[in-house]
Amino acid sequence: MLDTVNIPADMKRFSHEELRQLADELRIEMIDAVSTTGGHLGAGLGVIELTVALHYVFDTPGDRLIWDVGHQAYPHKILTGRRDRIRTLRQGGGLSGFTKRAESEYDPFGAAHSSTSISAAIGFAVANKLKNQPGKAIAVIGDGAMSAGMAYEAMNNAYSAGNRLVVILNDNDMSIAPPVGALSAYLARLLSSRSFLGMREAVKQIARKTLPPPLKKAARRADEYARGFAQGGGTLFEELGFYYVGPIDGHNLEHLLPVLENVRDAAEGPILVHVVTQKGKGYAPAEAAADKYHGVQKFDVVSGTQAKAAPTAPSYQNVFGDAMVAEARRDPTICAITAAMPSGTGVDRFENAFPERSFDVGIAEQHAVTFAAALAAQGMRPFCAIYSTFLQRAYDQVVHDVAIQNLPVRFGIDRAGLVGADGCTHAGAFDVAYLTTLPNMVVMAAADENELTDMVHTMALYDAGPIAVRYPRGEGTGVKIAATPTRLEIGKGRIVREGKTVALLSLGTRLGDALKAAEELENKGLSTTVADMRFAKPLDHDLIRHLAATHEVLVTIEEGASGGFGSHVLTWLSDEGLTDGGLKVRTLRLPDIFQDHDSPARQYAEAGLDAPAIVKSVLEALRHNSVGLIEGARA
Amino acid sequence: MLDTVNIPADMKRFSHEELRQLADELRIEMIDAVSTTGGHLGAGLGVIELTVALHYVFDTPGDRLIWDVGHQAYPHKILTGRRDRIRTLRQGGGLSGFTKRAESEYDPFGAAHSSTSISAAIGFAVANKLKNQPGKAIAVIGDGAMSAGMAYEAMNNAYSAGNRLVVILNDNDMSIAPPVGALSAYLARLLSSRSFLGMREAVKQIARKTLPPPLKKAARRADEYARGFAQGGGTLFEELGFYYVGPIDGHNLEHLLPVLENVRDAAEGPILVHVVTQKGKGYAPAEAAADKYHGVQKFDVVSGTQAKAAPTAPSYQNVFGDAMVAEARRDPTICAITAAMPSGTGVDRFENAFPERSFDVGIAEQHAVTFAAALAAQGMRPFCAIYSTFLQRAYDQVVHDVAIQNLPVRFGIDRAGLVGADGCTHAGAFDVAYLTTLPNMVVMAAADENELTDMVHTMALYDAGPIAVRYPRGEGTGVKIAATPTRLEIGKGRIVREGKTVALLSLGTRLGDALKAAEELENKGLSTTVADMRFAKPLDHDLIRHLAATHEVLVTIEEGASGGFGSHVLTWLSDEGLTDGGLKVRTLRLPDIFQDHDSPARQYAEAGLDAPAIVKSVLEALRHNSVGLIEGARA
Repeated sequence: MLDTVNIPADMKRFSHEELRQLADELRIEMIDAVSTTGGHLGAGLGVIELTVALHYVFDTPGDRLIWDVGHQAYPHKILTGRRDRIRTLRQGGGLSGFTKRAESEYDPFGAAHSSTSISAAIGFAVANKLKNQPGKAIAVIGDGAMSAGMAYEAMNNAYSAGNRLVVILNDNDMSIAPPVGALSAYLARLLSSRSFLGMREAVKQIARKTLPPPLKKAARRADEYARGFAQGGGTLFEELGFYYVGPIDGHNLEHLLPVLENVRDAAEGPILVHVVTQKGKGYAPAEAAADKYHGVQKFDVVSGTQAKAAPTAPSYQNVFGDAMVAEARRDPTICAITAAMPSGTGVDRFENAFPERSFDVGIAEQHAVTFAAALAAQGMRPFCAIYSTFLQRAYDQVVHDVAIQNLPVRFGIDRAGLVGADGCTHAGAFDVAYLTTLPNMVVMAAADENELTDMVHTMALYDAGPIAVRYPRGEGTGVKIAATPTRLEIGKGRIVREGKTVALLSLGTRLGDALKAAEELENKGLSTTVADMRFAKPLDHDLIRHLAATHEVLVTIEEGASGGFGSHVLTWLSDEGLTDGGLKVRTLRLPDIFQDHDSPARQYAEAGLDAPAIVKSVLEALRHNSVGLIEGARA
Repeated sequence: MLDTVNIPADMKRFSHEELRQLADELRIEMIDAVSTTGGHLGAGLGVIELTVALHYVFDTPGDRLIWDVGHQAYPHKILTGRRDRIRTLRQGGGLSGFTKRAESEYDPFGAAHSSTSISAAIGFAVANKLKNQPGKAIAVIGDGAMSAGMAYEAMNNAYSAGNRLVVILNDNDMSIAPPVGALSAYLARLLSSRSFLGMREAVKQIARKTLPPPLKKAARRADEYARGFAQGGGTLFEELGFYYVGPIDGHNLEHLLPVLENVRDAAEGPILVHVVTQKGKGYAPAEAAADKYHGVQKFDVVSGTQAKAAPTAPSYQNVFGDAMVAEARRDPTICAITAAMPSGTGVDRFENAFPERSFDVGIAEQHAVTFAAALAAQGMRPFCAIYSTFLQRAYDQVVHDVAIQNLPVRFGIDRAGLVGADGCTHAGAFDVAYLTTLPNMVVMAAADENELTDMVHTMALYDAGPIAVRYPRGEGTGVKIAATPTRLEIGKGRIVREGKTVALLSLGTRLGDALKAAEELENKGLSTTVADMRFAKPLDHDLIRHLAATHEVLVTIEEGASGGFGSHVLTWLSDEGLTDGGLKVRTLRLPDIFQDHDSPARQYAEAGLDAPAIVKSVLEALRHNSVGLIEGARA
C-alpha cells in the first residue's frame, strides 16, 4: 500500500483494512530507513497508526498538523512526499530530523524544542477564523512536553481557537527519560481509572459535554458564575476549558479513526484527545530497551544492534557528571538539577551517587533555574545543567532571579556551539552573547575535558555570584584528566604557545584548530602565540593588553554568534584606546545564519572556524593596509 | 498598635482584636506613605490582613515568606523594620518598590517579574529539607500570575517540597488588567460553587484529604495505579498534587488566622490556600477605580486625586498603539498581541478599534510569541507588544519559533533602556544584545515619537522576516508627528547634523543628548557629526564606512548593555579592517552593573549616557595617543 501513497490524498479511499496494512508497511519502512541513517526511532514507532489516522481523517495540508518537537515525524515525512529522501535524514543536504517549513507544505510549523505545538496550533486556528477561511489546527504533543510552562500558557488560551483546535495528547509515559512531576502522576491516575474509549463511547462522551468554553471578557463571566461549578470537576483539561475525549488506544485504528472523525466534526471546542501509545511499538529491540531507542545510531534491523563507534575519549557530559560527583563527595551542599535530560547532561551519574541531592524537574527550564537560585539563597551550591539552546527558555530567570540577585548558581551549559546532525534548532550559538551581557555573570568555556574538570572544581568553590561553563556536544580530546583538579583563577587565561607576530585568542574547544593554524602560520614564517582564554567574562585584561602590546594581529576564535567573546575583547580594547594605534584585530565567530544540519567538520568549515579558515583570516588581516583595503587586491 | 511593632516578633502576643487594629493602622499608614511617594497601592491594600496574619502565624524570617512580583509588599515592609524608610519608596537611595534581598532578611528572594515565587519557595523548602533544618516556605501569588507557565512548572514540581511548602493563592480577580484565560474562568467557577471556609471547616477539610502526593519515581507509581482515581477529581490544584484549602475570605482575620495555623501545622503537603481578596480594599477611591489604583502618582488622601503632571508630549506606548491602529485600518491582516499589559503597551487602543484582532493572552509571553509566529505563518501580520525586560521570558520562542523560521512577527519592545523608579528588574537593558545576535532579525530603535510612527509603518509593510522596534518608557520628545508616516529603508540611518572631526552614532532616544553634546563639542572647536542610526541590525555599512573615512573619532551611543549596537559597529569595522589604520572608536552603553531605581536623569548620568558624559568620552578619546595612554596623564 505504501508504494501507492505519495501524499495523504492518495489514501483517502483506503478501507480500514488497507489503512492497517499501510501502517504496517510504514513501520517497516521507517525502521529500515533509520537503520541506515540513525536518528530518532522510538518516538516515530509510537505514532505510526496515529500518523495514518490523522492524515486519513483530517484534510492536510489545509488542516494544519503540528508535531510537537518533531522527532516523531519521520512516518509523517514518509507519507507527505518525502519517502524518496527519507534515507537522507539528518545527513548534510538531506531531510531534517525534525519538522521544517522549508521542507514541505505539510510542515506548517517547524519544531525541535518541545511544547510549542499548542501555541502554534492556536495561531493557525485563529488566523483561519480571522480570515474567515476553513481549516483546523491539530497539535500532537507528548505527555512529557506537557510539563513545560509554555504548553500550559497555551492551554490557558486555547478557548480563542474554538472548535478549530484539536490537541492530541500522545501519552506514552516517556519523554526521553521517564517522566517526573505531578502532571505525569495525574495522567497515570487518569488512565488507571478509565477504560479505552471506542467510537460509541466517544460519540456519547462528546454529546454529554456541556462545559462552556471559558469566555474572554470579565464582563461576560457572570454567565459562568450562574452556571455554577456543578458540570466541572472533570479532568484537569476540562478545567482548562477543553472538551476531553479519551483515553484511546493509539495503536488501534478501529478506535482511532471513528473517534477522530467524531472530533473533527464536533461543533464545540477546543477538544483534547488523550491517546495512549507505546514508544518503540512494533519493533522488539526498541520495546525492550529502557530508552525505547529514543535516539539511535545506524543499527542492524534483525538484531537491533547499534553500530556505535568505540569512543576514543570520554564525552564532555560524562566528564561534567563525574566532576560534579567528585565535588559533591567533598561538599554536602552541592546538588544537581536537570530539566528532563539526566543522561544528556551527565546528571544521571550524579543521581546515581547522590539521589537526594539530584533533581530532574521535567521539561521545565524556567523552574529549574529559579529553583536553583533559591537553593543557592538558602546556602546550597546548585549545579544547573542545561543545554545552551534550552537555557534560552530560562533567560529571564537567569537575568531576574540569578544575575540581578547575584546568587551563586553554577550553570553547566552543554551542547555549546555546533551540534552536527541535530542542526540549527539545537546549536548552542547564543549563550556567550546572552550571558556575557549580564552584570555579575562569570562565563567560562572549557578547551578540553581536563579543563572542564578544573572549571567544575572552580565553580564548586566560587560563591561570589553566578558562574557558567560551556562545553560542546560529544567526545573530548582524549587529554589526560588530572587526578586532582586545579582551582582556576577567575578571569585569567593562559598562553599555550608563544610567538611574536600573530596572537590567536581562543575561547573553548576551538583551541585545537587554533594550535593547528599556528603551526601552519609558523610554517609560513609568522610567529604565532596561542592563548586559551578560558573566560569570556570577566576578560583577562592583563593578558589581552600584553598580547596587544606585543603582536601585530590579534584574532579571537569562539564557537558562538556575534556579540560574544570577540566583541567584548574589541569593546575593551577600544574602551582602553588600545586599537587607536592601528592594532589589527579580527573576531572569528559563528556566521550570521542558522546553519543547517551537517557533519561537524563541514559545519566548522562553513562557519570559518577550522584551522584553514583561521590561517586565511590572519593572512588577510596582515595584507590589509591602514584604510581597509587588501594590499594584494589593490595591486 | 503599629507603633509597637518594629519586626513581626513584636506582635506575636497580640490578641485577635489587637491584630485587627494593627491591620487598620497598617492600612492607614500605607495609604499615607504611598500618597507621598506614589507607587503600587491597590495590591498592597488587598493584602493588609493577609500580611498581618502570615507574619503572626509563621515564624519569619526563619520561615521564608516570598511575595510574588513584590509590588504588594509595602505593608510587609512596614512590618519588617522598614517603616522608618517607607516614605523613601522608589526614590533614589530609598526602598525598592519590590522585595529585595539586600534590603532585609525578611525578603529572602527578590522579585518584580511575576510568577517566580513558587519555584523560589520550593528551593527554600528543599534546601531546608536537605540541610535537615526547620523552616517552611510560603509563596503568595496572585491569580493573574498563575497564568504564567513558570507557575505551572513549579506546581508540577511542588511535591519535592512536601509539607514545607505553602502556596497562598491571592485571588483578587485582577492582575493589572482584568484577567483572561481559562484558569481565571476556572477560579471564578470554583468560587461560585463554594462558600468561604472558617476554622472548623478547614480542620475538617484537611483531615478529609487522602490524595497522595505524586511520587517521584516512575517505579513507585504502581501505588498510584492501585489507589485508582476515585479520590481525585477535586480541584485543578489537587490534580497537580496540592492539598487545596479554601476559599477563605482574605479580609477576615477570624477566618484567616485559624486556617493558616492549621495549614502551618499540617503533617502533609504541599498545601495551597485559596484566599479571596479585593484589590484596593479599604480605600474608597481605589475600590471605585477600574484599575484599583494599581500604580499611582502622589495623591491627595481625602479625595484620591492623583497629582499627575500634565503631559508635554504623548507617551511612546500611546503613539505605538495609535500607529498600529492606523496601519490596521489599511490592512485587515494586522493584529496585536499583549501579555497582560494592554494599557502599558498601547494595545488597549488597538483593542478598542479592532477587538477581534486584539489578543491579551495573560501573563504568558512564551505563548504570545509563538502564537504570533503561527499567525504570521498563516498570513496575518501580528504586532507583538512586550516590554523589553518581559520579552526575556520568551527568548527561546523568539529564537526557535520566529528567527529560525524567519517569520514576520513585528515586535514592539516597550520600556527599552532605563526606567527610573521601577529599577533594574524592569530596565530594558539587554534586548539589543539578545536580539541582534540572532540571524534574520531586524532591530530598530526610535529616536522620537515621529520616527516610531515611521517604524511601525515600516514594520507593517515588512514581510521578509522578524522585525523589532524598541522605544523607551514615558513621554516622547514633543516632536510633530507627520500626518502620513514614511516607510524607512531597512538598514539605513540618517545624518542629523554634519561635522568633520567627531561622529556620534546614536541609536534611539539618546539622540537628544547626542545633539546637545555636539553643540558643546562645537563650542570647544570640535566639528561634530550626529547620525541617527535607526538600525542596530542590519547596520548601515555605507554610512559607517563614510563616517569612518571622514572623521577622527567615532562614538556610538545606545541605551543598552554591552554586546549590542556599539559592539556590532566595532565588529564590522574590524571585519573590514577599518580600524587597522588608527581610527578611534568608542562605544557608550549601559554600565556593567544593575542600576538601582532613581530618577531617569540621575540614572543617565550614572550610566555615562547624558550629554556631559558623551562630551567627556570624546575628549578623552582625542587625548589618547596611539598606544592607549592619555596624553595629558603621561605629561
